[in-house]
Amino acid sequence: MAPPGAGPSSACGPGSRGLAALFHGGRLAAARAEHPSAPEPWLDVSTGINPDGWRGVRAPTTALTVLPDPAETAALEAAAALAFGCEPDQVAAVPGAEAGLRLLPGLLDVARVAIAGPTYGSHADAWRQARVTTTEIERSTLFQQPTDALVVVNPNNPDGAMTPGVELVAAAGRRWLVIDESFVDTEPTMSAIPHLNERTVVLRSFGKFYCLPGLRLGFVVGSPELARRVRARTGDWPVSGDAIAMGCAAYADTAWALKTRASLVWDMERLDGLLTATSFTIVGGTPLFRLARYGDAKGRAWRLGEQGVLVRTFPHDPTLIRFGLPGRKNWRRLQAALEASR
Amino acid sequence: MAPPGAGPSSACGPGSRGLAALFHGGRLAAARAEHPSAPEPWLDVSTGINPDGWRGVRAPTTALTVLPDPAETAALEAAAALAFGCEPDQVAAVPGAEAGLRLLPGLLDVARVAIAGPTYGSHADAWRQARVTTTEIERSTLFQQPTDALVVVNPNNPDGAMTPGVELVAAAGRRWLVIDESFVDTEPTMSAIPHLNERTVVLRSFGKFYCLPGLRLGFVVGSPELARRVRARTGDWPVSGDAIAMGCAAYADTAWALKTRASLVWDMERLDGLLTATSFTIVGGTPLFRLARYGDAKGRAWRLGEQGVLVRTFPHDPTLIRFGLPGRKNWRRLQAALEASR
Repeated sequence: MAPPGAGPSSACGPGSRGLAALFHGGRLAAARAEHPSAPEPWLDVSTGINPDGWRGVRAPTTALTVLPDPAETAALEAAAALAFGCEPDQVAAVPGAEAGLRLLPGLLDVARVAIAGPTYGSHADAWRQARVTTTEIERSTLFQQPTDALVVVNPNNPDGAMTPGVELVAAAGRRWLVIDESFVDTEPTMSAIPHLNERTVVLRSFGKFYCLPGLRLGFVVGSPELARRVRARTGDWPVSGDAIAMGCAAYADTAWALKTRASLVWDMERLDGLLTATSFTIVGGTPLFRLARYGDAKGRAWRLGEQGVLVRTFPHDPTLIRFGLPGRKNWRRLQAALEASR
Repeated sequence: MAPPGAGPSSACGPGSRGLAALFHGGRLAAARAEHPSAPEPWLDVSTGINPDGWRGVRAPTTALTVLPDPAETAALEAAAALAFGCEPDQVAAVPGAEAGLRLLPGLLDVARVAIAGPTYGSHADAWRQARVTTTEIERSTLFQQPTDALVVVNPNNPDGAMTPGVELVAAAGRRWLVIDESFVDTEPTMSAIPHLNERTVVLRSFGKFYCLPGLRLGFVVGSPELARRVRARTGDWPVSGDAIAMGCAAYADTAWALKTRASLVWDMERLDGLLTATSFTIVGGTPLFRLARYGDAKGRAWRLGEQGVLVRTFPHDPTLIRFGLPGRKNWRRLQAALEASR
């Protein structure tokens, strides 16, 4: 049996693609190998994905037998623009926010970038792979950095730090500002999109709030010129027929979005109650995930793994665990695992 | 009514994303606007996509509610490697061959590129967008060019020119060689993949042979180091859960591939018969599309449009039309339209 220090979030086991050093969540296969006697199915709360997501009609298989018409992709971008509060020509669909952020070093002519951290590791990885001088610094000092470009995740992952988007844009001045709004759907008034200037780039994720990450759909939002440059890098068919069909329908379903924002706040409060009752201290988060402190977080994560519950830990601080929401059918199981793992 | 010269392939109508200068096929929406009285549904033979494609089980919607596990993406790459004749660590999945080719200028450190043309326009566009000095030259003189990188589409689109992959690799020497094998599935022994060296990059398309272009699935194949660099640009979840499910199953279905290769040759001969009987001269192609000559090809394409048949014409030569296969239910309709358009 593996020692407590070798929990799922530090695993680089079979099937890893060599990027495991970024400590993405969701590595269920590795967790199963670490905890062979854990009950099935696993309860994966290692991500910030809404478990009670939007459910709509998929594109029929026949729709996949033709290339998406560019007019259909444009319709998806227009639906997203309406939801985000901008013009359609400012929005470029990409196969996931991850794909979008990895395009940016090749699009922006930048020698030095400062990233407000600790945060989602792919940002630093993408800029370093492109040989851009990359520093990760305290969010509070971000705008004092002498640099060409700034990256902020807003709200931040994992601590939930959040600044009104309009303030971020104003503070950046003439520098490039990349704002990763992957988790902003629960707090749409915090979005910078209605306040963009020509040097602001916003990343949006479809999969997290709507719970369809396997579709691979995200957006790069900026000036029309920036959106044009993104399209030149992705070509005429950036996303699948299914992503177009489901994205168009979901963004038009504003009633679902309103109701879901409200219920996620209730869920968040319920999760906070469970965590504080089982010896955690809540230190941050958003309605889609909570960051909690516990003395030996690695050990506790491993004991949760023995219960078939996958959480996320962090190499930069061994006292932190991040919990996503369990989904409406799984609250009791999560409660039992939290109690048993004390 | 629009004049004959303004056929669908030169349209840049509503919904165009500004890349219409590349003259991609499949612009049905623009064709409908050009030919408002054409019968519905349109018969689209403007692409080189197999109309009688592979049909298999899609990923269930629940599979889209989680991020694809990197082990699943690795399984897809292994299935593709087995079909292509290489090792899994040489294959990187991308959301379409188009996405793959547009990654290359950022991956290869190249100042000048020569492309064997005329060919698929996205290659030149991608390198020019990246400010690489790009020349399009006769295929026969490609290897005499003093350049850092060579691009060959093999078999070529639209003329079907084909060279054994092993010869292309040998002729390129120490230069980067990009081989776009989007149409090689009908002639797998022509693939360069079993003969790669460290400076060869092969692009493969899933959607054309299997008739699932709307899935957005393709592959970049090269040295393990090149595949690693592609993964660093696409991140941990390059393709959708549906692309993984259908790609794994389709590449494993070797019986379907064998049978389909044989029936596509029959279809090709049938199409050649129809075209020559209606005043075309066949000048090239592959089993998935035929390039035909006709004095006033633009005018004839427009008359075919009036019949609700969408074909592809070419700005570089106004006497050429490309025809894809019509699909097993549509032969009579194509024949009638070819006869009526004379």
